[in-house]
Amino acid sequence: MRTYTGTGVTPLTGLGEVVWYAETVELDDPPEPSEVDPDAERERFESARETAEADLESERERARERVGEEEAEVFGAHVQFLNDPQIADGVESAIGEGLPAEHAVHEAFADSIEQFEGMEGRMAERADDLRDVRDRLVRVLSGSAGTDLADLPEGSVVVAERLTPSDTAKLDPERVAGFATALGGRTSHAAIFARSLGLPAVVGVGEELKGIEEGNEVVVDGEAGEVIVEPDAGARERATAAREVETRSEPVETADGREIEVAANLGTLAELEGAVEQGADGIGLFRTEFLFLDRESPPDEDEQYETYREALSAFPDGRVVVRTLDVGGDKPIPYLDLPESENPFLGERGIRRSLGPDRELFETQLRALLRAAAGEGRLAVMFPLVSTVEELEGALAAVERVAADLESEGVKHAIPELGVMVETPGAVFLAEELAARVDFLSIGTNDLAQYVMAAARDDERVADLHDPLHPPVLRAIARSVEAAHANDAWIGMCGEMAGDPDYTELLVGLGLDELSMSAVTIPAVKGRIVDCETDAADRVASRALDASTRNEITETIDQ
Amino acid sequence: MRTYTGTGVTPLTGLGEVVWYAETVELDDPPEPSEVDPDAERERFESARETAEADLESERERARERVGEEEAEVFGAHVQFLNDPQIADGVESAIGEGLPAEHAVHEAFADSIEQFEGMEGRMAERADDLRDVRDRLVRVLSGSAGTDLADLPEGSVVVAERLTPSDTAKLDPERVAGFATALGGRTSHAAIFARSLGLPAVVGVGEELKGIEEGNEVVVDGEAGEVIVEPDAGARERATAAREVETRSEPVETADGREIEVAANLGTLAELEGAVEQGADGIGLFRTEFLFLDRESPPDEDEQYETYREALSAFPDGRVVVRTLDVGGDKPIPYLDLPESENPFLGERGIRRSLGPDRELFETQLRALLRAAAGEGRLAVMFPLVSTVEELEGALAAVERVAADLESEGVKHAIPELGVMVETPGAVFLAEELAARVDFLSIGTNDLAQYVMAAARDDERVADLHDPLHPPVLRAIARSVEAAHANDAWIGMCGEMAGDPDYTELLVGLGLDELSMSAVTIPAVKGRIVDCETDAADRVASRALDASTRNEITETIDQ
Repeated sequence: MRTYTGTGVTPLTGLGEVVWYAETVELDDPPEPSEVDPDAERERFESARETAEADLESERERARERVGEEEAEVFGAHVQFLNDPQIADGVESAIGEGLPAEHAVHEAFADSIEQFEGMEGRMAERADDLRDVRDRLVRVLSGSAGTDLADLPEGSVVVAERLTPSDTAKLDPERVAGFATALGGRTSHAAIFARSLGLPAVVGVGEELKGIEEGNEVVVDGEAGEVIVEPDAGARERATAAREVETRSEPVETADGREIEVAANLGTLAELEGAVEQGADGIGLFRTEFLFLDRESPPDEDEQYETYREALSAFPDGRVVVRTLDVGGDKPIPYLDLPESENPFLGERGIRRSLGPDRELFETQLRALLRAAAGEGRLAVMFPLVSTVEELEGALAAVERVAADLESEGVKHAIPELGVMVETPGAVFLAEELAARVDFLSIGTNDLAQYVMAAARDDERVADLHDPLHPPVLRAIARSVEAAHANDAWIGMCGEMAGDPDYTELLVGLGLDELSMSAVTIPAVKGRIVDCETDAADRVASRALDASTRNEITETIDQ
Repeated sequence: MRTYTGTGVTPLTGLGEVVWYAETVELDDPPEPSEVDPDAERERFESARETAEADLESERERARERVGEEEAEVFGAHVQFLNDPQIADGVESAIGEGLPAEHAVHEAFADSIEQFEGMEGRMAERADDLRDVRDRLVRVLSGSAGTDLADLPEGSVVVAERLTPSDTAKLDPERVAGFATALGGRTSHAAIFARSLGLPAVVGVGEELKGIEEGNEVVVDGEAGEVIVEPDAGARERATAAREVETRSEPVETADGREIEVAANLGTLAELEGAVEQGADGIGLFRTEFLFLDRESPPDEDEQYETYREALSAFPDGRVVVRTLDVGGDKPIPYLDLPESENPFLGERGIRRSLGPDRELFETQLRALLRAAAGEGRLAVMFPLVSTVEELEGALAAVERVAADLESEGVKHAIPELGVMVETPGAVFLAEELAARVDFLSIGTNDLAQYVMAAARDDERVADLHDPLHPPVLRAIARSVEAAHANDAWIGMCGEMAGDPDYTELLVGLGLDELSMSAVTIPAVKGRIVDCETDAADRVASRALDASTRNEITETIDQ
């Protein structure tokens, strides 16, 4: 038994047999230019480009259904790379110099890949995307099918240097027991896809991963971040037991009877079914960006109404919390005027746009929401990135205005529960005033940690700071909970932190009323809640709030 | 009497006669290509380019002395634009098509200017820089001297659509009574230069400014942000009185005897003299970036030692607070590995770099500081962008290590006062723990407001949010003051807020022990302090902390 450690990205464990996956086709040396017919190569390239584009479009469709609208957009970016005139020029000129199409493709991508490799964060991930597109073209050209990830033997564990988004989207969670990669972090596409698909996964194991051989039996423990090769009986048993987490479709309470709502984060309607299956009590964060992405004009009021109704009817007894449109410089949408910012995370995002340039879109969305609220089910609406009382009052005034319009038009409507996301330190320091004006608060820990610690969530050089377990973030959470309860508002959490079962006891102790997460983590978190005693949880929380460093907090949680 | 309003950028008032300044030379239609001798035009262009470069280098030197090292860097950027091969190619090809050099220059710059104009924030300012370089070349080529800003009649008020950095750096505060521009904001180069030079200035007045005529008598009130044309006797008198703010070279106290230290922010040694003249009690923020900018390799220990000693000897009785190197993705330095970030303000900056990639630089700086601390004067050292206790402990350990090294080498040294900047919400929530480990805290309101409000300080679309008068920022300040005092640490403030006399009473009420600012604002702030009663100040602060909106706070202050 050997154990490799990396970054676990889903709180799931899988056991299976290793299938090594190498996506890159190695090319032989090119033939002499005199042996190459440039016209034939041009045709081969053009035909490969068309095949690759068709494949990408069908994979995009597949990812949209299985993973989510926003996630599927990576394939849209790939189509753009594929059709980039600079790449086409590069290929043309390399073929002109006597190279066959495969080699011409390699040469045409080389410069762009190198350029992005020198950058950081998301820009560096572009290099991976370009490699992905390049290798797709080369595979089509060389007729090399490679390993078909969509058709692996049941119980396979995929092991690879890296997995591209296309690769990951092909994995079938019913057949694949998990995956492990040498590269990648918690925020890589592969990790995000793994969470959406509910796959056990460990990324960023490093080059040691190459010590694992084809056919080895391995445990992928996405909770501990471990890959165990040739596990002993104990490790096998733990892996098998971990897979059988009980799904609870009813609301749960702690051992001593405090009810905690456990809801799902949703990025598209396609995820509704999974949320119900995993036992979500409702939806704690229904992102509405998918309605606006990847189209030429915004969705109209009726289309939005239908979408919200569909979500509500999936949870006849549960609450559906819809977040109004949250876009900014980091999420391009063609028909919105979203100018580039030097610091998009500190720019015009969320409610700032809804009360500014996107005011009309916002009112249309509110009309659809107020109409949806009139039907069966419990709708709630919350506003993103609020950092002043004026902004909240502006949003509430818009709700009243829309209600008055609907009233005068004789359209059936109702005012849903209303809430505010606590994502900026500004909202934390104003939590009393905000809570006094709404029904609930919802803490978005990803953004909150990024602003409290002044560390961008996609900048690997400050990844260590971007962690909700740093004392300032916990203190900000505690301050928000206290303010909500003092003002008769309930308070939930919908960041990554909410879905990590290791934090469940701490969050119960901090007083959260609701936790919302990727559907796949719901059974594990519900399991922790039913085992939890609130007295013990309070003690954990109070020790954590007294701690000065993240290490002390980690120790407190591990006790 | 007519009043135009804009953004005041210095708390100074000036009275004088309008000199309209239009920097752009209007070109006639070009002659027929057959009338142009391309070779002669090429020579004209090359000679103009050389003249412009020499002018830029001497203006850079001048700005370095008069304004500051970092500010002078804008001229370095202009030299780069001037020598950009793309511009040279554009000029060459336009001359080849039969244009004279002036017109060729216009054509060569047009594309780049348009491209930058479409962007936001700092990138948009590039368009101004390019226009500045273009117009400089055209002026040299056309022999048009334009208005010589360095030689204006005494008592001139410069009125212009915009002022470039080159323009502003030429203004002589001894002769010029102030300036007003139609465009520009608080963070424009012109505004920053005005503060460094101590010039009354109002920017961003808008197109109405064109209603002012050459020779009009005007008051430029940089505190109220007003330009008063043909002022009546009362307005003239107020302007004259405002100019005669008393300079107090001794430390001051409130009317009832609470001493408040008033210190200067410094960006270069050249500003030392001005700080002493304006009556600074010491230096509250000595930025050390200027030592590292605009050179091929970092300064050595001895060069730094000499610099710190020079600052200390200018204030034999006052304290000199040196901030250790604070660089990141937004301040490029050639010999440091500063990779681009998507959100540089949320990236690897300040202490994060000093404990990481710049560790060696940091230890060299600490060696120089500990040596400087052994001489006359009171040296204090503070660490920027701390957001965890671990970081502070890392920095303090480095100080101990350096002290031990110096001890074993037998080098004379002393441990200076040590402090932490409170710039991130993380530091606010950890203020107790941080204060318990150091002698003092210093609040940097520019960064603090940016992180608390999640609004970049250079993004005009969120300028309204980036304001320290929002309740969350005041509450963060109050929390920090309380934590400092509870842990026997003193606490200062060194952001823009500290230098605004309108906020002095509020800041005294909030309990700040020290205020550090641009030297030019010191007399006005000291004047407010001596008029201040702490009881009344406490009431202002407590009303401001109870307020839910910025408007309520503004009203409280204005009462």
